[in-house]
Amino acid sequence: MSKPLILVTNDDGIVAPGIRALVDVASQLGEVVVVAPDSPQSGKGHAITIHDPLRLKHVRVFPGIEAWECSGTPVDCVKLAKHVALKDRRIDLCVSGINHGSNASINIIYSGTLSAAMEASLEGVKSIGFSLLDYSFEANFEPCKPWIRRIMEFVLGDSYPKGQLLNVNIPNLPAESIRGIRLCRQADARWVEEFLEGRDPNNQPYYWLTGKFVNEDRRTDTDVWALENGYISVVPSMHDLTDYSALKNMLDKGQLTAEVTVHS
Amino acid sequence: MSKPLILVTNDDGIVAPGIRALVDVASQLGEVVVVAPDSPQSGKGHAITIHDPLRLKHVRVFPGIEAWECSGTPVDCVKLAKHVALKDRRIDLCVSGINHGSNASINIIYSGTLSAAMEASLEGVKSIGFSLLDYSFEANFEPCKPWIRRIMEFVLGDSYPKGQLLNVNIPNLPAESIRGIRLCRQADARWVEEFLEGRDPNNQPYYWLTGKFVNEDRRTDTDVWALENGYISVVPSMHDLTDYSALKNMLDKGQLTAEVTVHS
Repeated sequence: MSKPLILVTNDDGIVAPGIRALVDVASQLGEVVVVAPDSPQSGKGHAITIHDPLRLKHVRVFPGIEAWECSGTPVDCVKLAKHVALKDRRIDLCVSGINHGSNASINIIYSGTLSAAMEASLEGVKSIGFSLLDYSFEANFEPCKPWIRRIMEFVLGDSYPKGQLLNVNIPNLPAESIRGIRLCRQADARWVEEFLEGRDPNNQPYYWLTGKFVNEDRRTDTDVWALENGYISVVPSMHDLTDYSALKNMLDKGQLTAEVTVHS
Repeated sequence: MSKPLILVTNDDGIVAPGIRALVDVASQLGEVVVVAPDSPQSGKGHAITIHDPLRLKHVRVFPGIEAWECSGTPVDCVKLAKHVALKDRRIDLCVSGINHGSNASINIIYSGTLSAAMEASLEGVKSIGFSLLDYSFEANFEPCKPWIRRIMEFVLGDSYPKGQLLNVNIPNLPAESIRGIRLCRQADARWVEEFLEGRDPNNQPYYWLTGKFVNEDRRTDTDVWALENGYISVVPSMHDLTDYSALKNMLDKGQLTAEVTVHS
């Protein structure tokens, strides 16, 4: 049996230590090709580049590993990986990260790391986004590695369906303090923003986004609870944003659906 | 009773004809404040600006209406609207659009228009993204207006819950041909990409994203079906990306969850 083809990407950029740790693990399990942004792309969500050309350049960053840097967003990287770098070869697994910082809870929708993994899942590829709860460039990814390997081995296995996405967050703890893996739902938490207001050198006003993460979802089945209690959180995630409960409720009440023509 | 406060934004930019049509309707129903991007922001998804300062400028674009243009993404616009332009006043409704082009099916995750509306919904604000299935700048938004008014009136009413998001797409048809409104789920369709390859003036290669929309979801309860059959599609949408069905399946099988420490 040939080795699985594993696409590795991230949103912190191709020189971030997190992607190096992920390449280390992935190359133990398959043939690795890296296509990652040439600059930090945190917070890019599911952005794609429509109105500008993209650059894709072969680079030597990881010894013995095929790697490309891309001028676009993380989602652009996945699209270019599939069609240009890999010339439509079948990808067995896409892993994105390891992100420097949490992508638990609502962070998933702002995260370039998770959006890249979701883009792969849209194409029917098994995919995983990995994040470590440490924002620093010097974060220690060593304790993550055996856990990441275990999760990747499971996902590569036959029991795991194609096109399924996992959002994996790892607490910033020494290896011996990590209590295990918890399957969770996304906590219903959010960011409370503030803007730092200032004046530029030309005395023009500017606003700079800042804020704090607030979780009022106190149940114990969430990713935030798992992480706060020493577990690695794994949230199966998807791109169908339909709110089926609201849809059923509105249909039951017959809201908005009368088939009459409205004239102004 | 005071008039409701309605925040209007979009992703095509503050001078796009689509937002003008939306302001026309919204100003019949409440006090309108516009905070919209100063340049086209299509395909920006849920991107936010973290590493750069943002600009927000009072502008006169719509007679008698308070309006601001913002240098950031559509999601940045909503955050700046809430905290800076509106100084944390309670927003009764956020409407985004009218987008020039479809945001049905999977387009919701790439769309700045819908991401702006979703950002408002995260803050507990009733919100609606409106799109017309005509990509041209000269699209005719007149047939949309009575329908948009009807949907906005419904959402402003007491029976509609706070923080709920609707994704509304309108077929590109003459007023008399629109058959009514259908409540739907998001069709399981996707983009099949291609890249236009070229050489720049310095003979360096570039790649430019293109592609076609493919729907193999043939059931009749989807937004794509509604639009193809002359209906306005309304999909209640949400930001909880948890795949509960996959989560239950994995929990039932006891996958990944053994609470043992893994050592390398």
